Amino acid sequence: MPTPSLAIPTIGVFDSGVGGLTVLRALLDRIPDANYLYFGDTARLPYGSKSAATVAHYAVGAVRYLQEQGAELLVIACNTATALAFDEIRRAAEVEAIGVIEPGAEAAARVSKNRKVVVIGTEATVSSHAYRHALEARKIAVREKACPLFVPLVEEGWVEHPVTEQVARIYLSEAFSNEAYDTDVLLLGCTHYPLIKPLLRQVTPRHVAIVDSAESTAQEVARRLECLTTGRMEPPLAGATRAGSVPHLRFFATDSAEKFRAMGTRFLGLSVEDVLHVDLKE
Amino acid sequence: MPTPSLAIPTIGVFDSGVGGLTVLRALLDRIPDANYLYFGDTARLPYGSKSAATVAHYAVGAVRYLQEQGAELLVIACNTATALAFDEIRRAAEVEAIGVIEPGAEAAARVSKNRKVVVIGTEATVSSHAYRHALEARKIAVREKACPLFVPLVEEGWVEHPVTEQVARIYLSEAFSNEAYDTDVLLLGCTHYPLIKPLLRQVTPRHVAIVDSAESTAQEVARRLECLTTGRMEPPLAGATRAGSVPHLRFFATDSAEKFRAMGTRFLGLSVEDVLHVDLKE
Repeated sequence: MPTPSLAIPTIGVFDSGVGGLTVLRALLDRIPDANYLYFGDTARLPYGSKSAATVAHYAVGAVRYLQEQGAELLVIACNTATALAFDEIRRAAEVEAIGVIEPGAEAAARVSKNRKVVVIGTEATVSSHAYRHALEARKIAVREKACPLFVPLVEEGWVEHPVTEQVARIYLSEAFSNEAYDTDVLLLGCTHYPLIKPLLRQVTPRHVAIVDSAESTAQEVARRLECLTTGRMEPPLAGATRAGSVPHLRFFATDSAEKFRAMGTRFLGLSVEDVLHVDLKE
Repeated sequence: MPTPSLAIPTIGVFDSGVGGLTVLRALLDRIPDANYLYFGDTARLPYGSKSAATVAHYAVGAVRYLQEQGAELLVIACNTATALAFDEIRRAAEVEAIGVIEPGAEAAARVSKNRKVVVIGTEATVSSHAYRHALEARKIAVREKACPLFVPLVEEGWVEHPVTEQVARIYLSEAFSNEAYDTDVLLLGCTHYPLIKPLLRQVTPRHVAIVDSAESTAQEVARRLECLTTGRMEPPLAGATRAGSVPHLRFFATDSAEKFRAMGTRFLGLSVEDVLHVDLKE
């Protein structure tokens, strides 16, 4: 497996759509001095309702494309793809790949004093039980709850809307009912959810900490780069030593570049400019 | 263009997913004595958020597949595909194709006394203005309103749910505000919406009639078959004369057959059995 040329690493971020931009946002905050290639498979989203075989097929194609464009480290910013197809992605990748499940589970396990975590995500992520397995391996009791309406509500822009609050109350009251009363962590297992984190904070029991997979994944990527850099006797986290440098961002979308630009800007919280439409043959 | 062998016609119904099953349901009620092939492009849904070029590409592939399986008449039961790609589908098809837009617009125009119609649908259907054009050609004033949350709410199974009612009140109060007060028809421009028709009836002004594209399309297909049959000196609507015969249903899905079976049964209101998984190469 080739080692990244870490002076300024090129990080490939993959998601089914724009949701993974919340992971890119967290990466930019933590590792500003890197080049980023972001691939959004917008023509084939959402992955959340598709089978494992279909998701694996799509994800492997996208990851190969990112490598061809020069990605030296891959971040699988899509919970569904990580949940359903991470092993296949890793087999197909020639560089290191980091998914969102393990870092999210690790952070939740670290935070939970009562060793009880509620995970929310799409139907596919929850059905895969990938978070359950990752948390149970860390001796954490898990309750999983699919929240399929959150993604369309976020995409409708209703991030501070009474309907979204009502839906969140319904989902979370189910998630925190009965024996889950002493659960002390809510793990956001979907990249869209950071956008409704303030609203989720309002309807989540006060003693419950909210852990965000996007943020945890960015921490893990930084740690990984640091290890690789240290191993090569270069200063840890090269970027942090070069204040003021501007990260280079390139975006690839399988559906309309125009739509990606519009929606992406909302998710990234930065203007999304350099978008190339990519037509992946199956 | 070959004429169907109309003794027992084979009708190909195409949709991006399970929504078109509401059209198949209407067809079964009206033309029970036919063979039906239903193609749900579930691996690539929803079309509603995709560009016209992508939708056309997918739809043409699906329609060709239905022809290879023996479809003698095509029903494009997907509003988005009809709105964005009907001309291309018609060019690619070797048999007659009927979309959902024209029959829906025709029925709405027939019902509206005040010549004012509100159309609701997905973002893509509304942005295409296909219903607007079809209605304006019939001298009807049109207001269009995208209702992107209805599809996920229906798929969540919340068809009689207070949240869905609240969302419907928000969408419809926008649609019927101000100068739309004397609008007297609400046209359901999405195949998922018949499932929330009772709820929509509750929140729609009482003087407004609800017209359903699925039902209108089934009427148009029956009329078309009748014309073709009459032209060939066979009894009109052969099926209607053979009471008790059971229509033959076959289903093709690009994603998991299992999932199609489960969700499809809800949409069709009949047990969905004979499902074949199809992998369309792009």
